[in-house]
This record gives sequence, structure tokens and C-alpha cells, in this order.
Amino acid sequence: MSDDRVQELRAQIDAVNLQILELLNKRAAIAAEIGKVQMQMGVSFYDPAREAFMLHQLEKHNKGPFSNETIKALFREIFRASMALEEQQAKAKILVQRKSPDQRTVITLPDGTQIGAGDFTIITGPCAVESIEQMEETAAALATRGVKILRGMAYKPRTSPYDFQGMGEQGLQIARQVANKHGMFITSEIMDQSQIPMFMDYVDIFWIGARNMQNSFLLRALGKINKPVILKRGLSATLEEFLYAAEYIVSSGNPNVILIERGIRTFEKWTRNTLDIGGVAVLKLESHLPVVVDISHSAGRRDIAKPLARVAKASGADGLMVEVHPNPPVALSDAKQQLTIPEFHALMDEITDRETAF
Amino acid sequence: MSDDRVQELRAQIDAVNLQILELLNKRAAIAAEIGKVQMQMGVSFYDPAREAFMLHQLEKHNKGPFSNETIKALFREIFRASMALEEQQAKAKILVQRKSPDQRTVITLPDGTQIGAGDFTIITGPCAVESIEQMEETAAALATRGVKILRGMAYKPRTSPYDFQGMGEQGLQIARQVANKHGMFITSEIMDQSQIPMFMDYVDIFWIGARNMQNSFLLRALGKINKPVILKRGLSATLEEFLYAAEYIVSSGNPNVILIERGIRTFEKWTRNTLDIGGVAVLKLESHLPVVVDISHSAGRRDIAKPLARVAKASGADGLMVEVHPNPPVALSDAKQQLTIPEFHALMDEITDRETAF
Amino acid sequence: MSDDRVQELRAQIDAVNLQILELLNKRAAIAAEIGKVQMQMGVSFYDPAREAFMLHQLEKHNKGPFSNETIKALFREIFRASMALEEQQAKAKILVQRKSPDQRTVITLPDGTQIGAGDFTIITGPCAVESIEQMEETAAALATRGVKILRGMAYKPRTSPYDFQGMGEQGLQIARQVANKHGMFITSEIMDQSQIPMFMDYVDIFWIGARNMQNSFLLRALGKINKPVILKRGLSATLEEFLYAAEYIVSSGNPNVILIERGIRTFEKWTRNTLDIGGVAVLKLESHLPVVVDISHSAGRRDIAKPLARVAKASGADGLMVEVHPNPPVALSDAKQQLTIPEFHALMDEITDRETAF
Amino acid sequence: MSDDRVQELRAQIDAVNLQILELLNKRAAIAAEIGKVQMQMGVSFYDPAREAFMLHQLEKHNKGPFSNETIKALFREIFRASMALEEQQAKAKILVQRKSPDQRTVITLPDGTQIGAGDFTIITGPCAVESIEQMEETAAALATRGVKILRGMAYKPRTSPYDFQGMGEQGLQIARQVANKHGMFITSEIMDQSQIPMFMDYVDIFWIGARNMQNSFLLRALGKINKPVILKRGLSATLEEFLYAAEYIVSSGNPNVILIERGIRTFEKWTRNTLDIGGVAVLKLESHLPVVVDISHSAGRRDIAKPLARVAKASGADGLMVEVHPNPPVALSDAKQQLTIPEFHALMDEITDRETAF
Repeated sequence: MSDDRVQELRAQIDAVNLQILELLNKRAAIAAEIGKVQMQMGVSFYDPAREAFMLHQLEKHNKGPFSNETIKALFREIFRASMALEEQQAKAKILVQRKSPDQRTVITLPDGTQIGAGDFTIITGPCAVESIEQMEETAAALATRGVKILRGMAYKPRTSPYDFQGMGEQGLQIARQVANKHGMFITSEIMDQSQIPMFMDYVDIFWIGARNMQNSFLLRALGKINKPVILKRGLSATLEEFLYAAEYIVSSGNPNVILIERGIRTFEKWTRNTLDIGGVAVLKLESHLPVVVDISHSAGRRDIAKPLARVAKASGADGLMVEVHPNPPVALSDAKQQLTIPEFHALMDEITDRETAF
Repeated sequence: MSDDRVQELRAQIDAVNLQILELLNKRAAIAAEIGKVQMQMGVSFYDPAREAFMLHQLEKHNKGPFSNETIKALFREIFRASMALEEQQAKAKILVQRKSPDQRTVITLPDGTQIGAGDFTIITGPCAVESIEQMEETAAALATRGVKILRGMAYKPRTSPYDFQGMGEQGLQIARQVANKHGMFITSEIMDQSQIPMFMDYVDIFWIGARNMQNSFLLRALGKINKPVILKRGLSATLEEFLYAAEYIVSSGNPNVILIERGIRTFEKWTRNTLDIGGVAVLKLESHLPVVVDISHSAGRRDIAKPLARVAKASGADGLMVEVHPNPPVALSDAKQQLTIPEFHALMDEITDRETAF
Repeated sequence: MSDDRVQELRAQIDAVNLQILELLNKRAAIAAEIGKVQMQMGVSFYDPAREAFMLHQLEKHNKGPFSNETIKALFREIFRASMALEEQQAKAKILVQRKSPDQRTVITLPDGTQIGAGDFTIITGPCAVESIEQMEETAAALATRGVKILRGMAYKPRTSPYDFQGMGEQGLQIARQVANKHGMFITSEIMDQSQIPMFMDYVDIFWIGARNMQNSFLLRALGKINKPVILKRGLSATLEEFLYAAEYIVSSGNPNVILIERGIRTFEKWTRNTLDIGGVAVLKLESHLPVVVDISHSAGRRDIAKPLARVAKASGADGLMVEVHPNPPVALSDAKQQLTIPEFHALMDEITDRETAF
Repeated sequence: MSDDRVQELRAQIDAVNLQILELLNKRAAIAAEIGKVQMQMGVSFYDPAREAFMLHQLEKHNKGPFSNETIKALFREIFRASMALEEQQAKAKILVQRKSPDQRTVITLPDGTQIGAGDFTIITGPCAVESIEQMEETAAALATRGVKILRGMAYKPRTSPYDFQGMGEQGLQIARQVANKHGMFITSEIMDQSQIPMFMDYVDIFWIGARNMQNSFLLRALGKINKPVILKRGLSATLEEFLYAAEYIVSSGNPNVILIERGIRTFEKWTRNTLDIGGVAVLKLESHLPVVVDISHSAGRRDIAKPLARVAKASGADGLMVEVHPNPPVALSDAKQQLTIPEFHALMDEITDRETAF
């Protein structure tokens, strides 16, 4: 008997569900039209005062059994869904978001080298430029493995003001000279938008470090240049924040952004950071931008470089970033994580042998 | 003109809002009735197959502009709200949750000492029982400050199997003997439900450590005894998980649970853990159970004990837990965080002087 | 001139360095002998009172320029190094630690199936046993792919006492029956040591969940049985704590432990947990135990199962754990992360095609 | 007998300890002299090549029983200690570090208002400047409670480029006008060093947000102005990184830095961030700079503002930061955490009544 009653009540629910469905869609259609008008007027979709008014109305008319709290929570969801629809229909959708499974941003360098087109790109070089000899020795070795993108780091963001801060413009000159000799491209971290004109003379790919991931002035400024930009994930940025940071650049006019996952900060002490490889998989799903895995900063130790390189490749990432130094123990920064040149060759063997497989 | 059009469309939206409101409440009323019938039948409210069926129906009938995804997301919110209402109306609400601003669980010990009634309770003693002399020296000092609850830790959960694991039952005997002499009560950590009968002979307040916070068998077993239980927050438990762990005890029959916030694990290295004092404030808001702040494990260093004791008191917590040892540097565990006896006196002076103020 | 002075002083330093070196080794040799004697006496190496005495002596005799603080810090390092040496020489080294690059624990099941010997083991099945039909349908599909180890989860540790807690012993019976039919082995989570005798009747591989990773009574009890044990990493356990938890089992007599990395808790919201793949690489380096990657709980979403399966394989792990359910949306737990049977087949295709490559 | 042997060996150890002690101090004295010479020569203390050479020498001469690894680890500690001593003796010590228990930086505003001198400073105002009316209504209320420092936020760092980014310079004009009327000072977040000249016209206290905590170019630029600077802790910065960020400013010439703890990012969801109150206590111990507690961003909810305000005061902090808005539900940002004006008055009553006690 009770069971029959349940069936009867469920049928009523089903009917109400369909009525609600119809009204939700009716509401969405009207809201979308408002959106269209507002866009012509140049007004933002989000109007908190209007929302507050509607919630107040609903509260006034609510007779229960749902509490005002619940009603307001449900309508906030409806508002959010409507707004999402408006934004979508007005094509104001997030630019960096993947719209179809095969959409991909491919970045082409002057010599035709591509990032994001299916090859597994290696970005490498020392943590910092220290001398012409150090750069030359490293680049010569990298060139034999076909590396095209060289780290030419001349400004190092350091925790302490008393630590080595990089060679500055002189470092960029060295990197440029060495890269030219070996037919390579340079990427280098920019610290402040005031450096853009000077960097334009030396650098092929701009690099925004983890500490600057949410420096919106720098992001927007690099959205106005015509060179690619590498953007590193902040050390405790969520993936959502990471994509929005990329959106600052892309929405300012520069579509050529490369995302680097470099590990997030956790309590674990045996690695410097925790490589978020699941995050890489999610980024490839959610965005069409190329994603590169930094296996140096994420681990902070060279003894797991090989498995991490294999992992990076297997994850579907578009490349990996690894630090290589002719003599890591005397490096001015990040001594523990830089590979020696022989270690780098071993790592390349490891992932090249398997190239056909992935 | 555009603005007029917006006004017109907004009026339409307002009307639709009220229609949706009415249907939502109608739906809630029917759902609540189903809930009532089901409760009589002894069936759980949550029926995933039924939900899947309803979502499927909606999907089939959805003509947009909302996508199926959005419609399903919105209805899942509606289902959740309905279920919350059913649960509430069926009075199956969470037991540990505060229902009114002045609801509070007060725990009364055999001599009339109360925890949670407004006094600021001090729970203290060495990290572990090491000898009768150590316990006696400590307890004698504590007694002069009116301390009533003595740590009598005889089983220490340790990371390494090779570390000191506590004195075992002999430790409990020592603690009991010393507590009796000074008119104190003992709290001691229980590691496994098999120890309950033996613990009943020695211990006044059971203690569940952070590592066992989600040991549901132990939680339920302690829900069946008639002595109070201290429950420590797991080292990376959310507040929601913490309250649900308490619910395991309370819903098994034992309402006398004391919550201890002891710091959560983060990346910060200058303190052992991060004391979540905002969490204490939230727990006092959300639950009627007494909340105690552990200033020893959260900080892992004795040099900030005084400010943390003041903070604990100011937060609205019902008491604090601090470790005191006659000679911390030779302690068998947690040497860096235990106070000396003079430091303990200084700490008591600090918070007692201010007693009238808070 | 100044430069000459620096050279001169550096030569002095070099000489002092060698004197310190000699004394350190002399000290280590004596300490090692003490260790040997103490081991014969059955005394632990670590004697905090002795350390405190030595530090006190040094403080008394210190005339600077190093502060007492610094001297004590340096000698604590020396003590630690000596103790490490003693432990090592006394062969009291951590059992789970890898002693040579090719040392590996291989676990052999009754039919000769091996885990940790080089094959990539698949452990799979539904999140929880729900019915004979559900288990049968799943197992039949898994059998076609050669799966040997079936999840037969009958006790589910749940955050809320009101959530589905598993079918209990009846679930184990179902799992056993289905496994027997398909020539499979069962692994099932044990919640409390009191369940061991009953579990021995049904289960081939015991399973300790993340919430029980530091339940030392359960760990030690499972160290005394003669069946393999799967140990999951706690949700915010460090790798060191994880290995020490395994050490509890192994040092109690059971060498057959399989480690599962299942993601750690972080602030990231787009995945349920953060898969610590760098941690897997470190575990393989530091320990000889087999390591399995749980791609279900770590991600909490099925849409990245394929890349994570490839990643698990590439990391050097010995296998992967993935949840499969005939109808995930109606599953009683973890609906969002369980694969459908077709999705499971696709995942197997993905990693089998590439089997030769890794 | 064995025990006698242990005693004998221990006496040998004690003798060796004292020899090592003497050599360590001898070494430190020589190293300090090198440091002095190098400072005259303008050379940095840290010379990785020299370290590598010494380690190589030691390795060559090491005959055990300590392994080369251990010897190198111990000597690296000795090097570090020596370098620390050199730096200290050369007075190159960290400027923001407290040298004596009563050292404190007191910041004096033009009207004599002091921060860090013992009073509990209230910094407050809306999350962002939205209109002259909103600022005027808020400031008028704040003035009645003696508030001197007004938030005049005109540039909002936002996760999404599509969110409200602040009113810009117009917002600063409004804030200035309102502050002048009520005899208040303005603090406002600066986003980029290019804004400094413009900000100098409007702002009394510069503000560096959490996202810019490690923007070294901005930090150094603000080290060259003659107005105080508020520095917020990055959302997952360690305390060490936080103090080093302050050091960038102070070592560039501006001693007037105020530290704000604003909560760190954790897995907890019931608060927006986790207020690190233990960190506040540690900062007060380690540094002489004023420390202010932001109870708005750390909690992200206004319902625990009162206990957190009491906690801030009890912690020994020099003040608190709280957001107040005439109508939080319609605020353009951070609606959930801003207090209404009546709530602000209640909060002030709460901490003022208790003023005499702390």
C-alpha cells in the first residue's frame, strides 16, 4: 500500500519536474535576450543589484516548505546558469577553453618548429645563465639532440634579496649569442613589464614565472606583444586560476600561450613540490593551449628525472622542461635539481627510444 | 530604447521566477510526503536509481536553450535541496549540529567539574607517562593551579615502529595512582577497540588520536561506553569530516564528546602544524560540543605557547590542551613542544590574569 | 694583497677541515662500538639523556666564536649521523628500504601470478560489492582482459555514519563466489583487527585503507598473517610516514606488502585529490616493495582515466587500481569516478597496445 | 661488564667531542676573517666553487667509517654555520629580524598616529571603492569609532579578467576626498611599479597584495619611497618567504613595513583560507615589524568576525584589517565576507570592552 502511494507521489513529482524544466528554459531564453541587448549597450552581464532585487522578491513571496535560504540558494544556481548561457551565446566564452576535442593551439617559431602540434617539445638549459662558457658547453650538447628552445634565464626571482639574482641584460646577450650559433630559440623570464622593450631585442619566447602568474599588468602587457609566452602555474594556484591567468594574455590579443605545470606546494618533503600530473590531463581536456611539464622544479631532485620524463610524455603533455648544467654542484641556483650533460643524454635516450610508442 | 526593452524583459523574468518558486515549493511538499512514507517503510531517502531516471526524463524532454548538462546540474541541486528538507522534516538531522544559539553540551565529571559550561578547562600533563617520578612531579605542580584533567598517555601512536610506543598498561597504573593522589581525572589515548575493557579500569576520559579520527569501528565502540570521549581532528581532516566523526560516536549513544583542534598539516615549516583557529570559531558556531585547543601539537614549539593560550581563550573555545614535562629535553617524545613546569606557571598566570576580561 | 690573504686563510681552513674529518671518523668508530655493545644488551641506540649531557658539556666548554646554539645544532647533526651509522652497521636498517638497485619484493599468488616482478598488474572491480549481479557482470568483463585481482569491498569507510557502509560479510561471500567462478583473487578492505579471522575465510589479499594507514595495532596484526597486504597512503601522509607504516607490517613478520599511491589532499578542486606521481618514482627508488597507482580515488573523475593509466605505467609503478562498475550513475558510492565496462575495455586497449613499449 | 665498556667508550667520545668543538671554533674564526677581507673587497660570502673544492678534498681523504655522503652532509652544515657567522659578524644580518626582545618598528603617520607602538590599529573600509556615496557612508561610520586608516582600493587583482577590476584612478580620487573630509589616511593596493608616481598623489600607505608578495621589482621600488608599505603574505608563502619579501623592501631603504597575515590556502572548505594565527605569534617573535591580522580574507565569512577579532587582539598582533560595506550583498567583490556597518560597530564593541584586559 505504502508503495503504491510512493508511486503516485512520484508521478506527481515527474509532472512538476517537466513544468519546472519548461519554465527554466523559458527564463533562459528571456535572459539570453537581455544579454544580447546589454552587449549592444556595452554593459556587463553581471548585475549584483538586480540579483539582490530578484532574491528579495522571491523571499517575499516564498511560503515554504523550502526555507528562504534554500530558495535563494537554488535561484542563485539558476542565475549562474543563465549568466553562463548568456556569456556563451554572446560568444564571450573563455577563450582558452577547448570548444571541440580536436581544437588545439599550435605555436610556430620562425624556423617552422611547432609546439602543440603533436611533437614532444624539449625546453632545456641551465637554471640561470652564469657565463658564456657554461651556456656554450650546454647548448653544444643540447644541439646534438635537436633541442630548439634554450633557457636563457638572466633574471632569477629569488626568495632572499641576498641570493644571486641573475646576470641581467648581459645574461640575455650571452644567451642570444649562443642560441644564434646553434640555431636555437631563447626563452627567458621577464620580471616586470618595464623590461618588455629590452627583452624584445633578445628573447624569442617570453616566460612568466610562478610568482608572477597573477600579475595582471604583466599578463595584459604580454598579451599585446607578437611573441609566444610561457606561463608557469603559481605554486599554489588552482587549475581554474591558471587558465584565467592565461585568459588575461589571450584576451589581450596574444593567442600564443604555453602552459607549464611545475608542481604545487604541499606538505611532502621528499620532493620540492608535488607534480600535479592529473592537472596536466585536466588542462589538456579543458584547454586547447599546449601544456609542458617541468620535471625539474616539480621534483627538485635529479634522481627521478627519467621516470618523470616518461610520465610527462605519457600524460599527453606537449613537451617537457628540464634543467641541464655542465656542473650542477657549483651552479649558482637550484644545484640539486639540474641534470649533468650525460644525465641529459640518458634522459633523451629514455624518451626517444619510446617515441614511436606514444 | 534598449533600456526600456531590458525593463520589459526583466518584468517577464520576474513573473517566471515566481512561477518557478511556486513549483519548487509544490515539488518540495510532495517530496516531503514521499519521505514520510519511506521513513515509515524504513527506507533511506537517497535513491540514486530514481534520480537517474528523473534526470533521464528531463534530458529527453529538454528542448533548450539550456543544455542537458545545465538542466541536470540544476535539477541535482533541486534534488539535494528536497532531500535536505526531507531529512530535516524527518528529524534525521545531524546530532552534533547546533540547533539554537544557546544549545551546548556540558560534560560533568564525577566530582562536578564541568567542561563546556563556560569555564576554560585546562587539560595537561606530559606527552607520555615515562615514570612515577615524572608523573608525580608534574601532577603536584598542576594541582597547585587547580588542574583537574591529567594526560596519562600510555600508548603513543608513532610514525616509526622503532620509536618509543609508550609504557602500556603500566603507564595507565602510574597515571591512575598519581591522579588519585591529587584528586584529578585521567585522559588517555586508546589505540584499538580491544583495549576498551582494560581502559575502563583506569581512565576517566577516553581519547581518540588524530590518526584514528576516522576509525569507524573504534568510534562506534566508544559510542557505547558511559565515559566522555575526547576526539582529535585528523591532521588533514576537514571540519565537516571532523563533525561526522563525532557523529559516529554520538549516534552510537554517547553524547559526551569533546572536540580538539590540534593543527592541520600544511607546507609551513616554522610551526609543526597550522593551528586552525578560524576552524575553532566555526566549530563553536556549527556544533554544541565543547571545543578544546591543543597548543602543543599545533605549534610544535614552546616559545609561542603564551600567545597561543591567549588566542585559544579569546576564540571562544572551552579549554586548552598543553603538554608539560619536568625536563623536556630528555622527554621520550615531543621534546621541543613540552613546557617546563615554570613555563606552565607563567602560562597560567598569563591566561588567569585576563580571566575576567573574556 | 687581500686576495693573497684570502688564499692563506683558505689553506688554514683546508688543514682544519682534514683534522675535523679525522676526528669525526674517530668519533664514529667509537660510537659504532658502543652501538654494538648496546645491541648485545638489547638497548636502543637513542638515549636522549646522554645527548642532553653531551650538549651540556659542549656548551660549558664553548668559547666561541660559534654561539652555543650553533654548536649544539652542529653536534646534533653529528649525533644523528653517528646514530644512522650505528643503525646501519647493526643491520637494524629499515626493512622496507631498498638496499641495492635491483632488490625487489615479488609477491606470488597461489596460481603463480606475480606482483612486482615486472608485469603491470591490474587491480579492479566496483568501488563496493552491491549485489551478486553487479559483481558477476563486472567480473565476467574483467576476466576477458586477464584481470586476476578483483576488488571485493564489503566494508566501506565513509565520512558520514549515515552513508552506505558496505554489505559486510555477505558482500565478502558474493565476492568470493564470483572470484572462484572466474579464477580470480579477492582483495578487500579490513577495518579492524577483530575482523581478521573472518576475513581469512574469504580474502586473498588484505587491504588497509587510507584512513587506517597509521592504525599501528591493525598494521602489526596484519604483520602476523601469511597473506599479502595492500597498504594505501593516508590522504595527507608523507612518503616517509607511508614507508614507516609499511615497516610496521614487515617488521612484524609479513614481507608481502603492496603500496598504493591514491592521491594526496590539496587545495585543488578540479580533481578529488592530487596524484603524487613524483612520489611513486621516489617510492620505487627508496623501497623494494611493489607500488600500485590508484587512478580512481586520486582523480575522482573518469574522464582522465586514460592518460592517468598511461602515466601510471610510464612511472615505473608495478600496476594500477581502477574502479569499474556496470552502471556508475547508480553506484552506492563514488559514482563519478567509476568506469563503465566499455570505458574499462578502452583503457585496457590504451595501455596494452603500448605494452611492448614500456 | 658491558656497561663498563660503554662508560669507557663514552669517555672517549666526550674527549673527541671537545677536540671537535675546538676545531670548529678555530675554523669559524678563520672563516670570519676571510669574510671580513671579502667584504672589504666587495665579494659575496657564498662561493659555491670553493665549497665544491673543499668537499672534493674531504671526499678524497675520507677513510670512513662515515660514508662520503655523510661527511659531505656534515661539512655542508659546518659551511652553512660558518657563513651564517660571517654574515652576522659582518652585520649583514637580515634587517627585518628582531635582534632583542623589545626591538620594534613603530610607524608614525603625519598626524602622529602610530602603528606598532602598542595600540591595536584598525584598518578598514570596503573591499573596493565603488562610489562616492558608498565610501562616504562607510567612512562616516568608521570615523565615529576613531578609525584612522581607510581602505581605498581602486585596483582589484581578480582571478578572471572578466571580473570587476576596480575603478582605477577615479577610485583613488574618491577615497582621497572622503579620507580628507574625515581626517583619515588611505591605504590602497598598487599593482605595478609604473603606478608609483600616480599613487604618491593619493595614497598614504602603499599596499602590496598577496599575489605580488614576491614581485621583487615592485618590492624594491617601494623600498625607495618615503611612505609606509603594507605587505600581505602570499596565499601559500612560508613565513620565511614572507620575511624575505619584507627584507626586499627594507634593504632597499624603506624601514616602514607592516606585515599582514591573511590566511593560507589549504584543503579546508568551510573557511576561504586558514588563518595562521600561530604564524602571527612566530612573526612577532622573529621580526620587529608590526603585524596585522586580516580577518576578512582569512575567513571569507562574516559570521566568525567577532571571535577572530578577539583572537587577533589576543595573539599579540598590532592590529586588524576587516572589510566593511554599507550593503555587502550588492558589493562588486567579496560580498560574503564584508561586514555591514552595524556588524562593524558590534565588532568594535567586542574588542573595545576588552581593551583594558589586553
